[in-house]
Parts: sequence; C-alpha cells; structure tokens
Amino acid sequence: MPSTAQTPSPDIASLAADLQAAGVRTDAGGLAETLTRVAAGPRTYPARAWQALIAADLPDALATRLDAAAEALRPVDPKPDPARLDRLRTTLAEVGVDGFILPRADEHMGEYIPAPAERLSWLTGFTGSAGVVLVLPDVAVIFVDGRYTLQVAQQVDTGRWTVEHVVRTPPAEHVRKHLAGRRLGFDPKLHSINAAKRLAEAAEEAGGSLVPLETNPIDALWSDRPAAPLGPVEVLPTTLTGLDAAAKRERIAAELATKDIDATVLNQPESIAWLLNLRGADVPYTPLPLAYATIDRTGLVELFLDEAKCTDAVRAALGNGVTLRPFEAVGAAMDALGAAGKTVSIDPDAATEWMRGRLEKAGATVTLAADPCILPRARKNAVELAGTRAAHARDAAAMARFLKWIDDTGTGTTELGASDALEGFRSEIADWRGPSFPSISGAGSDGAIVHYRVTPDSDRPLEDGSLYLIDSGAQYLDGTTDITRTVAIGTPSQEMRERFTLVLKGHIAIATARFPAGTTGGQIDALARQFLWKAGLDFDHGTGHGVGVFLGVHEGPQRISSASRVPIEASMILSNEPGYYKPGAYGIRIENLLIAVEAPAQEDNSRPMLGFETITFAPIDRRLIEVSLLTAEEIAWLDAYHAEVRSRVAPALDAAHRAWLEAATAPFLD
Amino acid sequence: MPSTAQTPSPDIASLAADLQAAGVRTDAGGLAETLTRVAAGPRTYPARAWQALIAADLPDALATRLDAAAEALRPVDPKPDPARLDRLRTTLAEVGVDGFILPRADEHMGEYIPAPAERLSWLTGFTGSAGVVLVLPDVAVIFVDGRYTLQVAQQVDTGRWTVEHVVRTPPAEHVRKHLAGRRLGFDPKLHSINAAKRLAEAAEEAGGSLVPLETNPIDALWSDRPAAPLGPVEVLPTTLTGLDAAAKRERIAAELATKDIDATVLNQPESIAWLLNLRGADVPYTPLPLAYATIDRTGLVELFLDEAKCTDAVRAALGNGVTLRPFEAVGAAMDALGAAGKTVSIDPDAATEWMRGRLEKAGATVTLAADPCILPRARKNAVELAGTRAAHARDAAAMARFLKWIDDTGTGTTELGASDALEGFRSEIADWRGPSFPSISGAGSDGAIVHYRVTPDSDRPLEDGSLYLIDSGAQYLDGTTDITRTVAIGTPSQEMRERFTLVLKGHIAIATARFPAGTTGGQIDALARQFLWKAGLDFDHGTGHGVGVFLGVHEGPQRISSASRVPIEASMILSNEPGYYKPGAYGIRIENLLIAVEAPAQEDNSRPMLGFETITFAPIDRRLIEVSLLTAEEIAWLDAYHAEVRSRVAPALDAAHRAWLEAATAPFLD
Repeated sequence: MPSTAQTPSPDIASLAADLQAAGVRTDAGGLAETLTRVAAGPRTYPARAWQALIAADLPDALATRLDAAAEALRPVDPKPDPARLDRLRTTLAEVGVDGFILPRADEHMGEYIPAPAERLSWLTGFTGSAGVVLVLPDVAVIFVDGRYTLQVAQQVDTGRWTVEHVVRTPPAEHVRKHLAGRRLGFDPKLHSINAAKRLAEAAEEAGGSLVPLETNPIDALWSDRPAAPLGPVEVLPTTLTGLDAAAKRERIAAELATKDIDATVLNQPESIAWLLNLRGADVPYTPLPLAYATIDRTGLVELFLDEAKCTDAVRAALGNGVTLRPFEAVGAAMDALGAAGKTVSIDPDAATEWMRGRLEKAGATVTLAADPCILPRARKNAVELAGTRAAHARDAAAMARFLKWIDDTGTGTTELGASDALEGFRSEIADWRGPSFPSISGAGSDGAIVHYRVTPDSDRPLEDGSLYLIDSGAQYLDGTTDITRTVAIGTPSQEMRERFTLVLKGHIAIATARFPAGTTGGQIDALARQFLWKAGLDFDHGTGHGVGVFLGVHEGPQRISSASRVPIEASMILSNEPGYYKPGAYGIRIENLLIAVEAPAQEDNSRPMLGFETITFAPIDRRLIEVSLLTAEEIAWLDAYHAEVRSRVAPALDAAHRAWLEAATAPFLD
Repeated sequence: MPSTAQTPSPDIASLAADLQAAGVRTDAGGLAETLTRVAAGPRTYPARAWQALIAADLPDALATRLDAAAEALRPVDPKPDPARLDRLRTTLAEVGVDGFILPRADEHMGEYIPAPAERLSWLTGFTGSAGVVLVLPDVAVIFVDGRYTLQVAQQVDTGRWTVEHVVRTPPAEHVRKHLAGRRLGFDPKLHSINAAKRLAEAAEEAGGSLVPLETNPIDALWSDRPAAPLGPVEVLPTTLTGLDAAAKRERIAAELATKDIDATVLNQPESIAWLLNLRGADVPYTPLPLAYATIDRTGLVELFLDEAKCTDAVRAALGNGVTLRPFEAVGAAMDALGAAGKTVSIDPDAATEWMRGRLEKAGATVTLAADPCILPRARKNAVELAGTRAAHARDAAAMARFLKWIDDTGTGTTELGASDALEGFRSEIADWRGPSFPSISGAGSDGAIVHYRVTPDSDRPLEDGSLYLIDSGAQYLDGTTDITRTVAIGTPSQEMRERFTLVLKGHIAIATARFPAGTTGGQIDALARQFLWKAGLDFDHGTGHGVGVFLGVHEGPQRISSASRVPIEASMILSNEPGYYKPGAYGIRIENLLIAVEAPAQEDNSRPMLGFETITFAPIDRRLIEVSLLTAEEIAWLDAYHAEVRSRVAPALDAAHRAWLEAATAPFLD
C-alpha cells in the first residue's frame, strides 16, 4: 500500500485543534491520514458510521466539518493516460521481464475491490468489474467478457489495445502464442493458485516462463494511487448471527483435525466475516473488512487487520481466542507456520499464488482444499434465516412504495431518477446499510443489457409502450436482499406480454419445484427455461445464485446454473431470476429470493425431498401477464403469492398505497 | 483362450464324412473345433447363419444334423463349487501374490461378454452383468450394485463371500484397508487404464502394490472353460450404413493427423464394427465380432480377428485398406508401433491397462484420448436414420400384435410366456436379428425391479388388478429397437393410474422438449422428473441412453442423465424412459426412442435449437391415464401420437387387430 503521509491542510489542522478542544485524542497528521483513508473507501451506512473511529457522539457541528473534510479528500477517478502503457513497458524492461499479465483483482479475490486495487482501470481506462490485460513489447491485449464488449470500446484506446473475449480467446491461449523464449511477469498476490497454474502451464508449453514479481510494477508508476480504505469494523451479536464466533471456530477446528490439517489461511474477507461475526466497510456493496486470518486445529485465530479500523469495544468483543495483528504481518505468520513444519490447507480458487509460494518456501506442507468456512456459511442457521425473512419483509414495503411511484410517475422519470428514488425509499427502512450491488435500472433497450449500469451519460427517460427493468438490492443489519421487477410503462405489446409470461412460468417452475436431496442446481436450471425453449428462446445467464446474510449478494457454493455440480441443501439461500432479453428492444427478468426447505416425500421414496420458500414479496406486473398461457396451478400460485404480498406489506403502507397494492395484487381467479 | 482340440465324437466323424461326400472341404477334427466354438457362442439369427462358415446352401438334412451336433456341444452353465476359492488362493500363493482382483469383464470392455470370459461367475456362482471380486488370504468380497443385492445372496455362498455395494463401499476402499505390505494381482486385460490407475493409487496409499499377472489364474483352474466363440462376420452394404468403410477410415485418419497422432488401437468391437461396416455374432444381443484393430493417420487398418469367422466373400469385401490378421497378433502389432517410435492414442476408459503397458514397454508414446470413432458413430447419417425409422415401423407391428395378445390373454399367461410370445411376434418381422437385450418382463411387484430378468424359477402369472411391465427390443439389419410399455391387467387402482400419468407427463416433457444446441442430457433430465418430484416421488435410473444402429442398444457418449456432460447433437438417437417403481407392489416405465433434430428458433435467439422426433410407435395404455392430470397440450400430444401410431401400424394388421388398435389409440379429445 502506498504511504499516506502528507502535510495536513490548514483546514484539517484547525479541525484537529477543535477536536482536541472537544476532548478527542487526535493530531493534525493522524487526522489527515484517517480522513484520507476514509475518503478512499466507500461511503458508510449510516453515513457517519466511520466517525466512530475518531470519537463517539461528536457534536453535530464537528461531525459536519469532518464529513466535509473527508469529502474534499475523495480521490477522483483516474483519468486515462495512454502514456502509462509505455511507462509500464519501460519498467518491465528494468525489472528484467518481457511482459506482464494483470487481472482486475485484489489480493482477496473479491467481487468488489478497494480503490488502490483498481490497477487495470488506471492502466487502460476500463472500469468494468472483470478483465485481464496482457502486455508484451509487441502485444497489448485487454480481455473482457460479453457484458463489456461495448463499454471497453468506449473506454479504452483501441489504437493501443486489442480487445479479446476472455472466454473464446482466453489469455492462456495468447500466452501460448506469444511467449516462446520470453519471461512473463505477474503479481502472485492477484492470481489464485489455480489461475497461476494454468498460466504457468501455458507459458511452459510456449517455451517461455511465468515470473513472479516482488512488487507490482503498476504501484511504482501510479503516483496518486488511493490510500488503503479505513472502514469501521463491527462485531455482530449472536441475536443476529445465531452462533457465536467461538462455536464457529470450534467447528472449523474440528474439521481441520478430521483432515489432519494443522491450520488454514483465509484471504477471503467473506469467510473471515462469517467466522468471527465481523462486518466492515472497506469495499462497496458488501460489508467486508479487508483482512487475512489463520485458524489452527485448536480453534485459535490470528486476525490480520488494520487495528485503526477497530474501536476499543470491537477489540474487546473479538475475545481471547482471536489475536488481532497488523494486516501486513500475515506474511511473517505464514513464514512461522512453515518454520514449524505445519500442514496448512489453502483454497486453490480463493487463496493466491503468493500465499502458496510463501508457505512452501517457508517449509509448510501445503494441502489444497476448499475453504472450510464456505459450506457452513452457505447453510444458514435459524437466526440467520429469521433475520433474512425480516429484512425482506421490510424491504418489501420500500419496493411497494417504489412500484407505486413508478406507476404514478411513468415517463416522468429516467433510469437514474428511478434508481435514486428506490434508494430513497430504502434509506427510510430500519437497519438499512446501503445497496447490496449497483442497481440495474434499464429502460427499453437498456433492459436487454443483462448487467447494464446506468451513468449520467447513458441515462434515458422511461418511454411509453416500453418495459422498465429494475434489479436492485439492499444490505440490512439482519439480511441481504436482491429483487428484480419488470414494469410496463404505458401499454405493452402482445409480444412483450407473452414473453413476460414465459419467463413467469419458468420463475413459478423453480418457486414450486420439489426435488430429492442431492439434486444440484445444474439439474433444475432447465425447469426455468423449458417454456422459453419451447418458444425457441433462452436467456444467457444462470437462473440463480447463492446469497449471504448481511454479506455478499453473490455467495457460493450453491447456484442454479447448468454448470453447477453442488447439491442444494436445506437452509441455503438462492435467487430465482429467469429472464428474456430482446437485443435493442427490451429486457425481462423476474427475481425473488428463495430458502431451500425440506418438503414432503411419499413414504416409498428413498431420499428426503427439498423445495423452496419464496421470501421476496412484491407485486409481479399483472399488465404483463397473458393469463391464457398459464395453467390452473400457475394461476393459483400467482394469486396465492399476491395474497401473501398483500397481507405482509399492506400493514406498513398508508391508505393510498394500500389501495394501489390491492389493485396490483388482485387475483386472476376468485 | 483354452485349446479346443479334442477327439471328435463318432457322430461328428460320420457327419464330417457325409459333408465331404457332399463336396464340403472339412475333416472331423476341424468340424469338431468349429462346432465346439459355435456352440460356445450365442445363437445366430437366422438360426443357421453360422453354417455359412462351413458351406453355403447345405441340403436341409445335413443342416439339421449340423444343428443337432452344435446343440449337443453347448456348454452347460458352470456349477458353483466353493472349493474354487481355495484353489485360487493356492494358485495366487504359487504365483507370488497375496491376492487377486477380478471384474466381470472381457478384454473388450463389453457390456455383453463371451462365455470364456465369465470367470467371475465360474468363481462365485454370481451371474449378474456387473460385479467385482477381491480375494486375499483373509478377504473374499464380491461387490455388486443395487440391482443385484437379492440375486447375489441367492447365488453366492455368503459363508465364504462377503457382499459389498460397489458404489457405497467400492473395491478401492477395501484395497486401501487391506493391502498394507501386500501384493495384489490383477489381469491387466480386464481393467481399463483409468480403472487400473485408481486401483494402483489405492494400493500405493495402503502401502501395498498392484501387480499385473501374465496369465489370468482362473484360466488355469477352469478346466472346462468354454471355447472362444466363432460367430460369422458379415460386411454391411452402404445401402444400410450410408458411408463406406474407406470414407470412415479417411475421416478418422484426418482426425488423427490433426492431433498429431500416428495411430490408435481399438479394442471395442462396437467401434471396429462401425468403422469397417462389420457385424458379427460372438456375444449375445449385440451383433459384434470380437476383434482388435489399429488405424494409422493414412487410414490403413489392421484388423485382428479370427479368419475362421469370415467367408471368402467377407474377406474380399474388407478391401485393400484393411489387412486381416490373426486375433492374437495384436500384441505383436503394438510392439511394432512401439519399436517404430510411434505416437499412439488409446481411450483411457475403453482400452485396457494391458494395451497401455505393452505399448509403453515397446517404446510407443502413448496419448490418452477418447476413441475417435465414438462421436462420428453417435452422429447418425441420413441412411442410418432412415433404416432405424424403418426398423421401428416394422417392430411396431409386432408390438401391436403383442399388446392385443396381452389384452386377450390377461391372467392366462406368465412373465416368460409373455416375453416368449413377443419374441415370436418379432421373429416374423423382416430382417429380424434377435433380441437387442434380455427382455424385462415383470408382473406385479417384479415390475418394480428395474433390471428384472425372469427365470423359470421366478416366473409368475399376470394377476388381475396388477400392472405388467415389458421392456424389450430387437436387432434388425437396419436398426435397433428398445421399447417399454406398462399394461393394466384387469382394473388398475387409482394410485397406479395417477402415478402412471405422472410418468407419462415426464415422458411427454422430454418428447416435446426444445433446447439450445450445446445443452447436455444432464440439463434436461429433470424435465422428465419434475411431475414425480412434485408428488414426492422419483425414479432411480437415468431418463435415457444412446442407441446404435444394428449395434449396441446402449451406446454413448450421449445420454439423458443427471451425470451427463455431453451435448446432445442433431441425429443422435436416445431413449426416453422415465419410470416409477413402488417396491413390492408395481413398476411403471414408458419408453420410446427419439432422434435429436433441429428445431425452429426465434430470430433473436443466438443459438440454434434442437428437439426430438419420436420413432417408436405403440399404444400407451389409455386405461392407465388419469386425464384430469394432463394439460391441454399434453392431451394434444398424446392424441396426435396415437393418431400417428394408428396411421403407421394399421396397414400391417388384419381387421381384428385394426379394430383393437382403433380402440387402443382412440383420442381423448375429439
């Protein structure tokens, strides 16, 4: 991480003095560093949560001045500069390698990454959430997936960069083509063990080599690289988590002992957050503290996390079995495991090649095995499920207000206007902790772009006779939501109504599915597609993903996707989100979250059966349903679902909203 | 193979003399060997087809005497003898190993194996189609799957043999448990490369070793081991195969060249039969000649097959690009490939460990890759599809006669009586070449045994108020059939009707499925199960398997099964056979064969769509259908299917059968 030391501005010096006068222990230098790092991180929810790291209960005037001071320090998005590629090539030559391969990744293999890890964006201008670049003296390629084909062409200088499809012509293939006799540098902190293995094999096949670099060459060139974020850490009570950290540590320790493993090293904050009942604010959308941890077979944990993110109360709540150590000390801790000759497991898809190399070099016996926190985290306990249901019930009131507002506003708003309005409704809900991912607010043909993200440049009004698709979610202290609704603006075409109904039939097929224990998401994915398929249509994404509890909105290992080999188990949370996308015209998606639950089986069936409980409650647009395409059972499900929406949501609404809800959820059959 | 030399009986000597007098070139010794080997093989269809190996167009009196002489030599089923296990242990000690592991397999990894390969049956008494035994001084285990739990207990001396489930407690697990410091012998001709690798790893983990034996120790002990079969070989014309062997050889050669492979060695007769348009009669149910073959990147083939199975006409039809060599010469041919330093591919799941070892020892570079014949064989050409449709059309007439006969006969027959009657109807159909597998003829609770095989001991009458399940198929010169029908005997219960209808709904879901190119059988398997699942029920087998054309009734790589990762492609043939089995009560299965075909897609769908054409035409028992459980679309499919049955089958029937068919296929909707 770059140094954050700098001369405090006069404003900060005077603010520090006023804070001191109010009894806060701080100084201008320390305050400047704290504010710089806070400003480099995402906004916190509530907005002033970060101020707890400076003092509890500040007078409002000081709190307001702190807000303004942090805001002034917020880093600006790096402006693209084509010269950076030349400077990188010069640096590579100095380091003694011919090239460099860089994924859009941080050392925690996270979906959302902190600002100082946005190296790929700094180098190329591309701001998408997935990509890889390969640089050689005669090669500069950026690899993106189908979602980003348009965006990459707008953001990247295609005179300097060749764009390739990351799946169809993957980086390893280019390495095979271009690396004969060459040395390709890589930052081993940014590649999983399996990914590095594939690259090394490709390099070797080409007659070249993959060379780990001690420091990332971008970091030396990126002079205004943002500081490491400083999000406040909190410890959740068992009233929210259902199980205290000591019990979780004991369970993981028992698993390590069974497998004859001395310790495991965790680099994914999702696992550490689950294990220790911690939450943080270092990356957007997921309440994660950036950290490493080790846990040994006696259940003792070393937590590598910047102490400045913790108040005294948090430090105390961690308890005796957890030793808080500096973030940077994880390397030395792995050295110590090695020196002691320990057998250490790390996850080949989550842990980095840096971790593997460091452990092995230090003398550890490295076992590649799945992160032992993943499955117990996926199997939610009763308290987590109750919290998730409660969070969804509250979220439903915001959704109802929003859907009425869309009906009332119609063409009077834009994509940005609508998603801002929804965030406004949610911000009034108890225990709201911000969005769980960037809203996909797509009007008309923008709705056909599966991962559309509206910007001020792309923003457009909702138009008459079109469909509006809104996929959004929220973090609450007790659960994470994710919901998509597609709404008719004006009068929809018959084609829109028929295709919406085919998507709805698939959604109902999943919602009402029953299946034997042991069935994978790969087996049931087609239930959601069968009706579209029969009409010669399909959708090009999975049907559902796992979801965390006040954690990642995308969480494994379970999902509903043709590629999934993981059995769905009772108490796992999944999304149910079939869609249909007509390029250049409109998009349809209907998404609710589900809890997998035990279901009745006939006595002669040898395996227990599972089914789903739908926990998302919002009207599905009746104007888009062609009832003649539904079976009696499907109509019955829809009417029952809408009755449930009515009975759960109406009590939180005023009379006007209740009347709207009554109409929006009216049964098709009496 | 054991020597078949023996003193000819006086009958055979006199028959040989009479044949000589009729101008046939033979002698008593040669005739005795031919008859002994013919008698060790399966019956041929037509019954006297094998006599072509002695002479063409014999006078009927001589042909009848030949029949009788062969029949008298038919080997009797080996009687179980518990002392064999002790003798095996003594032999193992002499050979210098501690134990022996033996699968029920032949050196061609075939589903149906010749009599001299029935070593497991000789040793244990178990006659099932799958099993493994593990023998050590203190261990004698037979591993079978769920199909054979009852049968193994009846056939095997459980005082000497422990029975284990081959999946739940597999042989490798026992090897891990028992092999510390021990040497486990195995016959490398009877294990695929992958299977041997797994065993070797297990042995090594245990601290023991897996030791290949030069000769199978059973063969020395089995004094009356049947001779190698001598089924006549025939060459099919392109009017049946659609592509001559030269074109097929060229295609495989091109594929080898693309992959930089010099040659491949084939040990599966299914691949050799497809490649060279050969058929044979060495094993029951599948028209296979036992053979090996090599093909090199110029398309030249060496065929290792007993010349005595070929008439002069067959030898001539093989053509110049195919050299016929003695069966036993395949080892020397692999040595020659190795000596020439060739790169040779073999299929790790089909080729044997013996082949791998021999090639590597000889100096070949062995590449493990899928048998290159498998995919082109699975993609049927237009002539093969036309033949298959024609064979199914003829088979349908036999099925209609049979189903009327069952309706007329009802409780007046038994399981054996019924399956014999069906074979009788089929034997009158043009180009019939015998059954394609042992009929599953299950009355009442026997129908709940998925792979039930009726014996005189188990035979039982059809009973009033029960279901009768008949799964059967035939080989015809132009195609292979496989059909299951479930028939009400008397008045079925409401539960039977409801569950039959759930199975039917699943069958229709597959028959009418449409899906994008690239979809695997694993993705659509659940379409067949969804209705049973919703009722808390399931069935414990795949929904469908690939089928050959006058070849194996089970043929890969495509199948409809949760485990399948193989895309279904246009022109592949698959079965569609969901079922339901109530243990101790009744079984239901409805099976038709399908051809995967291109299907219409909407213009905005990026991938072409596929669907199925049903090619099996026989009434589905209307008395078992609870129409109220069907959707309008399902009823429409059923009525249209029955109309098709009527229009295709009626012309081949007399008035009484036509009247029966009219009623059996009456529409539910006018």
